Amino acid sequence: MDDLLKDFPVVVELPVVWGEMDARQHVNNAVYFRYFESARTLYFEKLGVWKMIGDTGVGVILASINCRFRIPLTFPDKISVGVRVINIQEDRFTVEHRIVSHHHQKIAAEGDGLLVAYDYNALKKAALPDAFRQRIQELENTSQH
Amino acid sequence: MDDLLKDFPVVVELPVVWGEMDARQHVNNAVYFRYFESARTLYFEKLGVWKMIGDTGVGVILASINCRFRIPLTFPDKISVGVRVINIQEDRFTVEHRIVSHHHQKIAAEGDGLLVAYDYNALKKAALPDAFRQRIQELENTSQH
Amino acid sequence: MDDLLKDFPVVVELPVVWGEMDARQHVNNAVYFRYFESARTLYFEKLGVWKMIGDTGVGVILASINCRFRIPLTFPDKISVGVRVINIQEDRFTVEHRIVSHHHQKIAAEGDGLLVAYDYNALKKAALPDAFRQRIQELENTSQH
Amino acid sequence: MDDLLKDFPVVVELPVVWGEMDARQHVNNAVYFRYFESARTLYFEKLGVWKMIGDTGVGVILASINCRFRIPLTFPDKISVGVRVINIQEDRFTVEHRIVSHHHQKIAAEGDGLLVAYDYNALKKAALPDAFRQRIQELENTSQH
Repeated sequence: MDDLLKDFPVVVELPVVWGEMDARQHVNNAVYFRYFESARTLYFEKLGVWKMIGDTGVGVILASINCRFRIPLTFPDKISVGVRVINIQEDRFTVEHRIVSHHHQKIAAEGDGLLVAYDYNALKKAALPDAFRQRIQELENTSQH
Repeated sequence: MDDLLKDFPVVVELPVVWGEMDARQHVNNAVYFRYFESARTLYFEKLGVWKMIGDTGVGVILASINCRFRIPLTFPDKISVGVRVINIQEDRFTVEHRIVSHHHQKIAAEGDGLLVAYDYNALKKAALPDAFRQRIQELENTSQH
Repeated sequence: MDDLLKDFPVVVELPVVWGEMDARQHVNNAVYFRYFESARTLYFEKLGVWKMIGDTGVGVILASINCRFRIPLTFPDKISVGVRVINIQEDRFTVEHRIVSHHHQKIAAEGDGLLVAYDYNALKKAALPDAFRQRIQELENTSQH
Repeated sequence: MDDLLKDFPVVVELPVVWGEMDARQHVNNAVYFRYFESARTLYFEKLGVWKMIGDTGVGVILASINCRFRIPLTFPDKISVGVRVINIQEDRFTVEHRIVSHHHQKIAAEGDGLLVAYDYNALKKAALPDAFRQRIQELENTSQH
């Protein structure tokens, strides 16, 4: 199973909880985006996003996101949610998310999110600070590939 | 049905949405507290709680809450959620919540919440500002009793 | 504003509730997929999906979904969520979702979902029943275009 | 911290995730009931509630629940959620829930839920099966007191 997430520098382990299932007895589709977010938030913490906002006034905004559902998740199970940056441009970057079910030992879902830099002082799009881009490179280099 | 909420000065109408049901095909118990909150938030808006915090540094914190479930809610349905203040003391007040199902024309759930005043500057409990207590009286007098 | 949803045969109106906002004071990204689902579920009801499953054993499964965020939603606001089918194939169809903010009178988010037919008896992918495809055509013809 | 949960035979450990916080930057009140439910569901699994329903047609329904909030929870943190039965009667029993914050090493919230037996075949209240009451006694005897 570790193989399924070996290229992901940040992985969080979460329990599937009973109340996340909907009337069809599977984890509801909206909950997968909560799972993605939990991994992404940890990645941002490691990047120092909150400090960056304080120092430069520049933060990141989720512009779009998608999910491809592979296996329905059910309670009880545990999942590992990986996140990595697969593309960086001047003013935006793309994260890839992957959810692995411990019970099935398989990929349960995958998705990509596009994040754009935003200057909260000037109230407009901005370039990603250089220090931020460097920190992403460093984090990505810690993955097991 | 209006009779069931006639003593409530603030009532919000909400749709029951499919995704609020859990694996037992009923609205999940935690969602009832979201319904309560939606009515309470509107009540607070009418009270001017946010302005009060700005003016005095004193806000209110939810100290405890409960819910008695009478009828299981299911999609599709609409609900009316009423809220009123049933007790005011020096530094706290109690709100009563009531959820009425349009489909069943009956009370689906009821509950009480205790809110305590808190001074965000002094970081300790506080007395409710007089203007706030008066505003509650005015709001309560607008109900149909 | 009606113009923004004129091609959508099914539209649901929902309140933005306070508790749907996250720590950034905007409606959380996962909640948009709950909004999409609420419209999609109504569309399915009108299609008679549940009856179809009973009659044929064939239902539909969400295979993938995405969302492009245009304007952050905040409480208080109301939204209209439209859904329409933009592509039908032998064993799958694509729905388009659009969320319009009443406060902003603008599109707040858009997204597409891919649904595949599934035979719950045979436990494998299936063709969409003809009656189902016809019902989609009828529904789509009721939109205002 | 173990001391705070030593009388609880069933304890689940959960991460506080970022998206559970609301616009006030604390975990939203409704989420505490999700936490309670996650522990209660595990307790029910250990009791064999699902098997009991299959064997006897008798299950349990949540009749009421409450929560007293002691410390606001924030991301990042981990919590341990304990559940125990504190009262059994002919046709109902009461569970006590307790949430302990790892970060604060303190009780963050406590609450009680009342569960009543229900005969799903006869569609009315029922007595708790004897085997079920025995199983509760056995489980409670496994706690560390």
